[in-house]
Amino acid sequence: MVDGLGAPLAAPLFDRLALIGIGLIGSSLARVAKRKHLARTVVISDASTEVRAKAAELGLADEVAATAGEAVTGADLVILCVPVGAMDSVAQDIAPHLSVGAIVSDVGSVKSAVLAAMAKHLPKHVALIPAHPVAGTEESGPAAGFATLFVNRWCILTPPEDADAKAVKRLADFWTAAGANVEVMTPQHHDLVLSITSHLPHLIAYNIVGTAADLEAVTQSEVIKFSAGGFRDFTRIAASDPTMWRDVFLNNKEAVLETLGRFTEDLTALQRMIRNGDGDGLFNLFTRTRAIRRGIIQEGQEIAAPDFGRHRDDEG
Amino acid sequence: MVDGLGAPLAAPLFDRLALIGIGLIGSSLARVAKRKHLARTVVISDASTEVRAKAAELGLADEVAATAGEAVTGADLVILCVPVGAMDSVAQDIAPHLSVGAIVSDVGSVKSAVLAAMAKHLPKHVALIPAHPVAGTEESGPAAGFATLFVNRWCILTPPEDADAKAVKRLADFWTAAGANVEVMTPQHHDLVLSITSHLPHLIAYNIVGTAADLEAVTQSEVIKFSAGGFRDFTRIAASDPTMWRDVFLNNKEAVLETLGRFTEDLTALQRMIRNGDGDGLFNLFTRTRAIRRGIIQEGQEIAAPDFGRHRDDEG
Repeated sequence: MVDGLGAPLAAPLFDRLALIGIGLIGSSLARVAKRKHLARTVVISDASTEVRAKAAELGLADEVAATAGEAVTGADLVILCVPVGAMDSVAQDIAPHLSVGAIVSDVGSVKSAVLAAMAKHLPKHVALIPAHPVAGTEESGPAAGFATLFVNRWCILTPPEDADAKAVKRLADFWTAAGANVEVMTPQHHDLVLSITSHLPHLIAYNIVGTAADLEAVTQSEVIKFSAGGFRDFTRIAASDPTMWRDVFLNNKEAVLETLGRFTEDLTALQRMIRNGDGDGLFNLFTRTRAIRRGIIQEGQEIAAPDFGRHRDDEG
Repeated sequence: MVDGLGAPLAAPLFDRLALIGIGLIGSSLARVAKRKHLARTVVISDASTEVRAKAAELGLADEVAATAGEAVTGADLVILCVPVGAMDSVAQDIAPHLSVGAIVSDVGSVKSAVLAAMAKHLPKHVALIPAHPVAGTEESGPAAGFATLFVNRWCILTPPEDADAKAVKRLADFWTAAGANVEVMTPQHHDLVLSITSHLPHLIAYNIVGTAADLEAVTQSEVIKFSAGGFRDFTRIAASDPTMWRDVFLNNKEAVLETLGRFTEDLTALQRMIRNGDGDGLFNLFTRTRAIRRGIIQEGQEIAAPDFGRHRDDEG
């Protein structure tokens, strides 16, 4: 198929898939699971009555359960799609209801802290395999999801050292069928890699938008008017879900502070080049950074259209 | 018309338009000038033989002149579309060839330094009115331009205090006919506003891409693979023309260092929030920044499509 998802599976990979949390990621997973027939039954739940009602209205799953415990009952795959800070309490809630041999996973953007938070509650008779699909948009909520969100994106699995290889393989097959490429690494390495490719970019975007809002000499209306010079791209990232991102920074503190330290060090060097009028130094840095963009486009992690294809009419 | 450019003018605004420099902006101006009939004759020139040949091949103008001096001869509107650092020498080159009463303008991203650099060379018998269209993409060169680049973007005019009001009006009419909205302000204020909406975003984007490239614990291949978490957006900006941006930072040093100082101060406060685990502080900042994005979308300076509309298939 044109959209890269391919035909539905002949036989589902799981009997009963339970998704806890129906935001952008959870609702996208529900959509692709239904469309690709990844599980015989898809059951979803959410702490919010409103979100559950919306999910039912959208017809996202076969069942909408009133509680997380009810949703996971009888499930052979459980995926927690809640903010990182909620993993601990959701794991506690579902623990008594989990079936023997169930795979329990998540989609959180931080892995060491989530692994620790979940491991302490879950029974020995389940396989805990944390995961992180590196995909998303700045939108939130059950209506924002779509089935192709994970196509050609990477999903990182961070199994504990003693994880059952068969369970890891089953979860990898699930994500592959959802359109993703799968990579396995340690939670620690994941948190370091994501601190530079995701967490720091968000931190900086939030920060510059805050700085702009607080300048006395430049009005907010001017910032908005003249944002096409580069600023507007940062506002997209800085429009991401505040709860999710608060939890990321609280739970990946060490790696983020380390990466931020490197960033600040480099920025200080750049500041000095500007102050000293070091044109060659600036030019060299600005040239070097182009190669990474080319790599990202070649790897299919980005569209090549100039300006993200914002301009539709580009003839004559 | 659908693309917002409207029908060609019944009568051209200028007799002979000379564009010096045929990169993204110069070639876009040539295209819109031809299509909208903004001048009876459009003549272009570029210091590079190769670029002139490409421009001739693309049929961008009525004439491709071998030198800037030749191009401006007889022109009643001259627009310099060269990097900020080249304005001084180009102004010197064209000065002896300028017609009495000609309007001389530019498209540089810095205005105080450009005004000073050009003013010292130009004869009294021309009207110098610097300008800056806040529009662009990460692409460079004559093939990258397109006629609708300026539609609904802002063009800032920064006339000297003693500028002829009629000349300012004529240049404003030209940019309006090219699809832009026009704003007039002092060069100093322009440089401050753009330092936050354009120059600092570029500086930070270049910096984070450089930081990522230099990390020892994370490979370049990992940075590329997992860039969809936010990093890839920065690489687009960091793919902009290195010469242009080197010149911007060398020529708007004071405002950039001032704005960078504010950014760093705010970033230090954010770093402290993370270190102290101040979840409320993080949440408040991350919520506040959403309002600016809404403003930018409402003002038509950005598309509202999630993820810049990278995902084309969003049903199901």
